[in-house]
Amino acid sequence: MIQTGIPTKGPTLGDVGERSVIQSIVDVTPSSINGDDAAVLHRSSPNSRAVVTTDMLVEGRHFRWDVTTPRQVGRKAIVQNFADIEAMGARPVAALLSLSAPKDLPVAVVTELARGIGDEVGKYAAELVGGDVTSGDSLVMSVTAIGSLGGNRWALTLDGARGGQNLVAHGRIGYSAAGLALLESGREIPEELTSLVQAYQAPEITPGSGVIARSAGATSMTDNSDGLLHDLKLLALRSGVNMDIDSSTIAPDDRLRAAGEFLDHDPWQWVCEGGEDHTLLGTISGDAPVGFRTIGGTAKPGTGEEPVVTIDGGATTYGGGWESFA
Amino acid sequence: MIQTGIPTKGPTLGDVGERSVIQSIVDVTPSSINGDDAAVLHRSSPNSRAVVTTDMLVEGRHFRWDVTTPRQVGRKAIVQNFADIEAMGARPVAALLSLSAPKDLPVAVVTELARGIGDEVGKYAAELVGGDVTSGDSLVMSVTAIGSLGGNRWALTLDGARGGQNLVAHGRIGYSAAGLALLESGREIPEELTSLVQAYQAPEITPGSGVIARSAGATSMTDNSDGLLHDLKLLALRSGVNMDIDSSTIAPDDRLRAAGEFLDHDPWQWVCEGGEDHTLLGTISGDAPVGFRTIGGTAKPGTGEEPVVTIDGGATTYGGGWESFA
Repeated sequence: MIQTGIPTKGPTLGDVGERSVIQSIVDVTPSSINGDDAAVLHRSSPNSRAVVTTDMLVEGRHFRWDVTTPRQVGRKAIVQNFADIEAMGARPVAALLSLSAPKDLPVAVVTELARGIGDEVGKYAAELVGGDVTSGDSLVMSVTAIGSLGGNRWALTLDGARGGQNLVAHGRIGYSAAGLALLESGREIPEELTSLVQAYQAPEITPGSGVIARSAGATSMTDNSDGLLHDLKLLALRSGVNMDIDSSTIAPDDRLRAAGEFLDHDPWQWVCEGGEDHTLLGTISGDAPVGFRTIGGTAKPGTGEEPVVTIDGGATTYGGGWESFA
Repeated sequence: MIQTGIPTKGPTLGDVGERSVIQSIVDVTPSSINGDDAAVLHRSSPNSRAVVTTDMLVEGRHFRWDVTTPRQVGRKAIVQNFADIEAMGARPVAALLSLSAPKDLPVAVVTELARGIGDEVGKYAAELVGGDVTSGDSLVMSVTAIGSLGGNRWALTLDGARGGQNLVAHGRIGYSAAGLALLESGREIPEELTSLVQAYQAPEITPGSGVIARSAGATSMTDNSDGLLHDLKLLALRSGVNMDIDSSTIAPDDRLRAAGEFLDHDPWQWVCEGGEDHTLLGTISGDAPVGFRTIGGTAKPGTGEEPVVTIDGGATTYGGGWESFA
């Protein structure tokens, strides 16, 4: 069953006050290192480095209660940050949550957000180690994720792709955008398409995929936060290599095609331009790492030529991607 | 001269778009490790641990343009986070900035915020290593700070105070609250009181003070973010010790008394209840560490008695402190 909307009953943040709001978060995300001026992370192996990233989520812009629940939003907030840690080849170990919310917001909304965060950090054996709550006109969440990059091998940076490599992917592509389109249509969603909706409401990546890819020899990685072509274009530009996608490897599957027919929408648009699947995208000289599949390859551009992303060797009319101030 | 207010001219965030906004931040806070999915921090010594904290600042609630400039707000945002890192006895090494802002905000406001951040991280030889910008109805900043805790010695946690220790402080107390009161009065501020205003607009702590205190044998530490008595009360409760302050060590100085007369306000209230000085407050069994002074002592409470904070051995009517959802 598809769930959306927020709890509307019970005490509000203003009723219970800051300390109780914090307690309601900590209760569902227990951590022995939370609650001081700052959190001291457990010591990793001597050679490990810390990896950090952050994302801000604004109600009405990055999440809406007509298409998600607070628990799902909590899960998404962690997944999108942890995907960025994985995309460096690192292991997520901790998260911080900052939250600004109106005083009249029911505490249950915050508790559910925190529960979703707890669900997801638990999958990674990570912890919510700190945060801040404050009042504000709108509901704004900021999540910071901290990861551990073991050993001496380089991180999977955006400039690490080289010519002659395989382009590899882990996770579905286009499902999240299709799921959002289904929810926004306002139509009753057929049972067989609910997995698309779930992919939007609570995308999942397999914990450890980035670490596996790094161990297997991947040299660059990102995720499709903003759209497959948009994010690959960034990888291509930063690395200075061309990327060509084999269309048969990303072609809309039965579900995406069914959703496309149901909504009279081109499913390729979801695949090429839809973001938020948090599918890991990387390059490797050898075979695709476990859990990844090859979706194309890279090549050195001609001298003086700007790197391009092509499909089956040709230019594509798809493009676009997310722009924050559009 | 006292400065407040924001730039109102020039292109807006909506005019230039996300990429240019990010570039305008990065231009004034250069870092070689910024710009990937996540930032990989430099390797510290093998024994070091990462320490993390975060604070969210909402326009109209935590900062206002009638009493500060964007550059000052940028500086304050770093100082309050780095003070939390110092209060663990750790060294701040990096910061992340998330920012939500209306599309019609002049880019110059963001550039100035970033410039203030750059000013302050530079003092610590730290770096702004990443962030996120997005549009939203209100201006909300979230800063995360990452520190390095060297060696095997314990962090300066809130539960580390013991009976029979000296209570020590680094930095002025009450200046920030007095400065805000002066600004809010709307009156022309006498030249000799501008240092109070500066303490509100851009409080400073000496980089490395927390590390020095930890090396010298301090066992607990916090800072007066929310008010001297409020924050000491938390330290007392979490450690299970009484704290007594020697009033002569915190008595309002000439400047605070002059401001009190000027505004017809009790300067003790600023000292006891005013926060945001980010004065480091800790306990140590020996002498006060370099840069710190002794302001009182600790004692074990009687069996079954709740820990208390007293002044000159007696209860105080001052108290209060910041409540986010009041």
